Amino acid sequence: MSTSDEGAIIALKEAREGLAQGGIPVGSAIISPEGKVLGRGRNMRVQNGSPILHGETAAFDSARTLDMKDFAGATIYTTLSPCPMCAGAMILFGIQKVVIGENTHMSGREELLRSHGMEVVVLDDQACKDVLDEFIQRWPKKWEF
Amino acid sequence: MSTSDEGAIIALKEAREGLAQGGIPVGSAIISPEGKVLGRGRNMRVQNGSPILHGETAAFDSARTLDMKDFAGATIYTTLSPCPMCAGAMILFGIQKVVIGENTHMSGREELLRSHGMEVVVLDDQACKDVLDEFIQRWPKKWEF
Repeated sequence: MSTSDEGAIIALKEAREGLAQGGIPVGSAIISPEGKVLGRGRNMRVQNGSPILHGETAAFDSARTLDMKDFAGATIYTTLSPCPMCAGAMILFGIQKVVIGENTHMSGREELLRSHGMEVVVLDDQACKDVLDEFIQRWPKKWEF
Repeated sequence: MSTSDEGAIIALKEAREGLAQGGIPVGSAIISPEGKVLGRGRNMRVQNGSPILHGETAAFDSARTLDMKDFAGATIYTTLSPCPMCAGAMILFGIQKVVIGENTHMSGREELLRSHGMEVVVLDDQACKDVLDEFIQRWPKKWEF
């Protein structure tokens, strides 16, 4: 992403690592109000066959916490606009701010997030678009499923 | 559940197996329009530390499918009313009908599901309440986190 935020940098790095693995290149990072990295992850559908491990859910999963309140007030960064499941996870875990790399490849549930009081920022970042464009060009069928 | 539907029987069995493991006893099953069991699972937050493996997401995860359309038109059974993340997963995967064991321990996102055209049935089943009551009595702190 064009921003120098640590979360944005991690999310794009995760997406690029996904691409290198032949996976759907969507990455995510969760940053606490104090700036601590609470979780990070990338879409793992291709890599391990899980239908639920999107970038954002993988980031929540990586935290391995039993206390849902650990995420309260955090900011989540994602390279692509979130689907209904990932938007629901953000609501469940009390995320306060959602920073989205781009929403041209998929227009997600941004209004749902806003209706729950979250701040939603769309960066419209070319680097996030480029990584998905490269994936779709190389593996068009993987993007269709 | 009081119903003899295969999905309801599997969901309750999963919840009871969760209780036997000391885990949050919420179970789920996904049944195709043709009656095939597409997935089954139980909440695994206590067992493996994943914050995202609720009963319903665990059932989707168990399917290990790369084709989201595999779930289209399916019925999901869950012993407890679904949280925002699990409701979002149902929307994402094109679930048609949601059968909920009970919604007294948690009132979930039933209206959101209905607003997406899903049929939502609440069984108000005593067996589903009992398994959660036993869990809360034995491990009250686990239910609070």
